[in-house]
Amino acid sequence: MENQYPVKMKALWLSEYGKKPELRVVDVPKPGKREVLIKIAASPINPSDAIFLQGKYPTKKSLPVIPGFEASGQVVDSGNHFLAKRLRGKNVACFAPLTGNGSWAEYMVTDFTFVSPLKKDIPVDLGSMLMVNPTTALAFIDICKKHNYKAMVNTAAASALGKMLIKACSDAKVTLINVVHRQEQVELLAKHGAKNILNSSDTDYLTQLQTICKRENALIAFDAIGGSSTQDLLSALPKGGEVRIYGRLSGDFFSADVTNILFERKQVSGFWLSEWIPRQPLLKLLKILKNAQKLISSGEEITIHKKITLDEFDAGIEDYLANMTAGKVLLCPGGHPTNEIVP
Amino acid sequence: MENQYPVKMKALWLSEYGKKPELRVVDVPKPGKREVLIKIAASPINPSDAIFLQGKYPTKKSLPVIPGFEASGQVVDSGNHFLAKRLRGKNVACFAPLTGNGSWAEYMVTDFTFVSPLKKDIPVDLGSMLMVNPTTALAFIDICKKHNYKAMVNTAAASALGKMLIKACSDAKVTLINVVHRQEQVELLAKHGAKNILNSSDTDYLTQLQTICKRENALIAFDAIGGSSTQDLLSALPKGGEVRIYGRLSGDFFSADVTNILFERKQVSGFWLSEWIPRQPLLKLLKILKNAQKLISSGEEITIHKKITLDEFDAGIEDYLANMTAGKVLLCPGGHPTNEIVP
Repeated sequence: MENQYPVKMKALWLSEYGKKPELRVVDVPKPGKREVLIKIAASPINPSDAIFLQGKYPTKKSLPVIPGFEASGQVVDSGNHFLAKRLRGKNVACFAPLTGNGSWAEYMVTDFTFVSPLKKDIPVDLGSMLMVNPTTALAFIDICKKHNYKAMVNTAAASALGKMLIKACSDAKVTLINVVHRQEQVELLAKHGAKNILNSSDTDYLTQLQTICKRENALIAFDAIGGSSTQDLLSALPKGGEVRIYGRLSGDFFSADVTNILFERKQVSGFWLSEWIPRQPLLKLLKILKNAQKLISSGEEITIHKKITLDEFDAGIEDYLANMTAGKVLLCPGGHPTNEIVP
Repeated sequence: MENQYPVKMKALWLSEYGKKPELRVVDVPKPGKREVLIKIAASPINPSDAIFLQGKYPTKKSLPVIPGFEASGQVVDSGNHFLAKRLRGKNVACFAPLTGNGSWAEYMVTDFTFVSPLKKDIPVDLGSMLMVNPTTALAFIDICKKHNYKAMVNTAAASALGKMLIKACSDAKVTLINVVHRQEQVELLAKHGAKNILNSSDTDYLTQLQTICKRENALIAFDAIGGSSTQDLLSALPKGGEVRIYGRLSGDFFSADVTNILFERKQVSGFWLSEWIPRQPLLKLLKILKNAQKLISSGEEITIHKKITLDEFDAGIEDYLANMTAGKVLLCPGGHPTNEIVP
């Protein structure tokens, strides 16, 4: 099976930020020493892709480039590094390289550390969403364990990531405080087994947040929102607490009270997965990627809205952006895979 | 000489936050095991005292209480701890205990780790200002060394602390980037031997700041200002940089760009001396207190505006608050010491 792949492939080709990528036929890339060549089965459109296409993502890649940050597929070739070679023939989840072409193509090369072999019970479509959300959830837990934090707050708790965190925190015995902003989300999360659910629209939300953070000694809050949410968290955490911003649903700025920072040993920093991954020791990363599969194996936390081919991209992304809560849109370069388990 | 001190003393007595402290005659305190009893020679009125009297300081002490955070004097008694005993008879600089009575009295007790014997060439009035500013300057350097930072930014660089930092950074071979906000301060700092002086009133200040932070790889900024200053620094520091807020000259809030936090591994935290000191290993602290004396031995960086007795306090603090840039006002409970070296 190895080395049996064409010289040319179809790919989505971005020539200018702010414009739509076009379907092109380009060369299939050759893997470098530490790299593997993956035949892409599925690759989701994520919020980060939408930001990337607009040219607003922090690491702008040189153009033209193939977009797409995460995918699943089969390793069909590799460089000579023994850990890269060991992946040949395997079904894997993968993250695109930090520079160069991504996963919205029939084939992609990436470093072997950005690749995780899929367990047999993981459907290939779910496997394409292994990297971003489950890995983020496990990274949050890893940060808690590292600092010996017993409890964390998560805002935007009704997201796919939020739901995964419920399971991940329960497994890791970390108390999770879930912040949502609508009553129906409170009920939804309760169904998913969440305890400690707060509705930020409640008039006494801040008092509730303060009380529960104190009771659970929650010394870290992961904030997807920014804006006033960051300061709410900063004021509610006990002394020495830290806010990690990982999203900006509420705009580009946040405001914070100097008193909390100056006199209460609190701090604000960020969490960005693309930056976090390369700083982790290899063995730890491999373990996290393995555990990420356990998190998604049930598939309960992920809703797939639609599967499209590369040439259906234009309509697909419009559909996705118009209704993101409907679920994920998956690009499937080889056709529309079913939800069956890859043999 | 030991144990020869009266049973009663004069002290400034604060009964209610927001009101002026009154002169009272109270009992001379007894030192606990780790404590020393100091006959106060001089104690400055600092900005933190003014905040404390208003009840706006973060650690509100139980009332009534004697105010005053730092002083110099002679150890006249101690508890049984051998390190406390060793201080008996010595002229010292001292920091008030975190709870209980402070230094605006004829006598004060405090923990031996809050006390530093004065070198013979340090005049007792300068020695009373050993703790806050020089120790802060050396703490900044310590933080740089700990993280292997080669350069730091300091805002409010024309302050007494700022001038001490010039000398401290030069000694420690840490590059200092001085931010002032008026042209005459640029000239003043240049006279003090400062290089890298930026005027935040310049129209191209942000570009200048960015250029110099990049050139010197300044990964930390100490910010006394807050408000928009924090974001200026956050945006100008290279990737991975951190802002430590240590004052709030520009009000109680700061605003920051989520992008800098989220995608550039930057962070905002605080520096508060009262909180920093107790977290340091004892030996390191003793070394820092010793080095602090070298910083002030020339006396160049400190202007003493006036020396007053305890019963002259009311006029003294009014004078100080009306004209803080004129220099320090020192409370001298035993009369007005000259600037001579204590024998």
